[in-house]
Amino acid sequence: MRTDELTTPALIVERSVLEANLDTMTAALPGPRLRPHVKAHKTSALARRQHANGHTGFTCATVRECEVLAAAGLGADLLLANEVLDTRRLGALVRDGARVTVAVDSPETIAAAVSGGVHEVLVDVDVGQRRCGCRPEEAGELAAAARAAGLSVRGVMGYEGHLQGLIDPADRARRTAESMTLLLRAAKDVGGDVISGGGTGTHLDNTWATEIQAGSYPLMDTAYTKAGHPFGQALFVLGTVISAGRGHAVLDVGLKSLGMDHGLPSITGAQVLACSDEHTTFVADDPIRIGDRVRVLPAHVDPTVALHERMHVVDGDDVVETWAVDMRGW
Amino acid sequence: MRTDELTTPALIVERSVLEANLDTMTAALPGPRLRPHVKAHKTSALARRQHANGHTGFTCATVRECEVLAAAGLGADLLLANEVLDTRRLGALVRDGARVTVAVDSPETIAAAVSGGVHEVLVDVDVGQRRCGCRPEEAGELAAAARAAGLSVRGVMGYEGHLQGLIDPADRARRTAESMTLLLRAAKDVGGDVISGGGTGTHLDNTWATEIQAGSYPLMDTAYTKAGHPFGQALFVLGTVISAGRGHAVLDVGLKSLGMDHGLPSITGAQVLACSDEHTTFVADDPIRIGDRVRVLPAHVDPTVALHERMHVVDGDDVVETWAVDMRGW
Repeated sequence: MRTDELTTPALIVERSVLEANLDTMTAALPGPRLRPHVKAHKTSALARRQHANGHTGFTCATVRECEVLAAAGLGADLLLANEVLDTRRLGALVRDGARVTVAVDSPETIAAAVSGGVHEVLVDVDVGQRRCGCRPEEAGELAAAARAAGLSVRGVMGYEGHLQGLIDPADRARRTAESMTLLLRAAKDVGGDVISGGGTGTHLDNTWATEIQAGSYPLMDTAYTKAGHPFGQALFVLGTVISAGRGHAVLDVGLKSLGMDHGLPSITGAQVLACSDEHTTFVADDPIRIGDRVRVLPAHVDPTVALHERMHVVDGDDVVETWAVDMRGW
Repeated sequence: MRTDELTTPALIVERSVLEANLDTMTAALPGPRLRPHVKAHKTSALARRQHANGHTGFTCATVRECEVLAAAGLGADLLLANEVLDTRRLGALVRDGARVTVAVDSPETIAAAVSGGVHEVLVDVDVGQRRCGCRPEEAGELAAAARAAGLSVRGVMGYEGHLQGLIDPADRARRTAESMTLLLRAAKDVGGDVISGGGTGTHLDNTWATEIQAGSYPLMDTAYTKAGHPFGQALFVLGTVISAGRGHAVLDVGLKSLGMDHGLPSITGAQVLACSDEHTTFVADDPIRIGDRVRVLPAHVDPTVALHERMHVVDGDDVVETWAVDMRGW
């Protein structure tokens, strides 16, 4: 199949760039040094590729992501790097043979892990992001409470999410070190052998975490590309020009096929003017004709992927594979 | 079922507000004066409620929306108010007995309607939004070309989308009149008996269109609510507080369950600080406990609904019905 036969808008992934991104990361963080985060791609076929590269543990943001990975035979070591109050579905995965570890940062989330039948936890520590996570000085007490409740405490996690977008390498390295100092202090109090953290933006800076939770690197977005990481833009939304000729052109790609929290998408060789539900209005440097196919570069990969039922792996204009985005929803 | 048994994040719709919104609009624009736009709710069960109120024609933004409505037995008069180059699936609906009218604004989209087997069109006119649509003075020529190609031209459409968010009633009314002057000029040149336009924001101002394409009014969002229209906020994303206690609280509702193009969502009695993939961080006026359920008010209804597989119709804390959001995708 050719890309011009695809129904648009269509999520497409350039295979050569994807493969280079996967291999670059595996070379930097081989085997268990990387625990790929699946929230960015939500696609078990892509997780299988990461697994084939030697990364057998995965990071998840939702219960659904854990369920789909376990059903795909990728449940050897799943970390739900998020707090959950209703852990019944996670407990069912454990009973069915998956290994599931869940983040806890409070007595309530410890009690939830116990009541749902999840036996392994990490203590989640706020390392400066100011989202979830306990204070570093509270981590030891929470670990003791978890062990007293019968849980196995594997260690700590602390996500320096507020640093992922920093462009200046020296600033990013310095602040990552500060965040990891907080996490290491907590790790000493907590015990266990896991120190989980990091992301695509800090994957080289963060030399303290035992495993890095990077998720964006296979597909990438324009926000991350600006920071100069060694990964190429593999993900695009392919659109069709449906209207043109009054000084601008209109694509059938809109904010229902693009994550908009990081702002407008980009089009190479064109200026994007606006996005509405099913439209992107743009002015191109070269002449545009109705029916032309155009690649749109999303500003944020994660919420863009979550809007699509499938992604097409392409080699230029050839569609070589189609993968279900099967971890959507909750 | 009670709402506290729902897996969160969950899209919930307050039944009494929904019913009041539906009836208020039907009283203002009875029967064929309203052609409800389904893009905002993407839910055939809700379209069936609009149909029961006497509105038998629907407006769609995507081919998928047309297909699902036709399959639900609601295909008596579907308007795809958008330009489409590949009309093969629309033609299949026509052959199966649905009535489908498609917007055209160029020789290419006229040719596409012919080749796919769609026999009825409206000429789409740009009435100031600067998106799709021909210039008003081109409409007559396009209509002639469409008729020469064997199509039935039912009339014109022109969406004053740029005026929907205007809050000042006098300004909105004046500018709606200006836009409709452009559309009426085109309608005179085009012929036919349909003049389709308008939306929730201009549904009372636009007295020139023969049918109003309003879509947001059943569910509403904070952007529309600010403009003082007679519709209440029926749609919420229900979340669970998963972390709290360090000056802020965190809900399991994030930008993967909220349309973010209109900015941050709101929480009554609280200040929203930030949204990330699966989290909303907020500070509440009253004490918050881990496990509490909180209603989040989306800033833009359309892309929020598109992220959810289902919506739950609730009466306070009781879930009275669950509807599939079955028109997602393309």
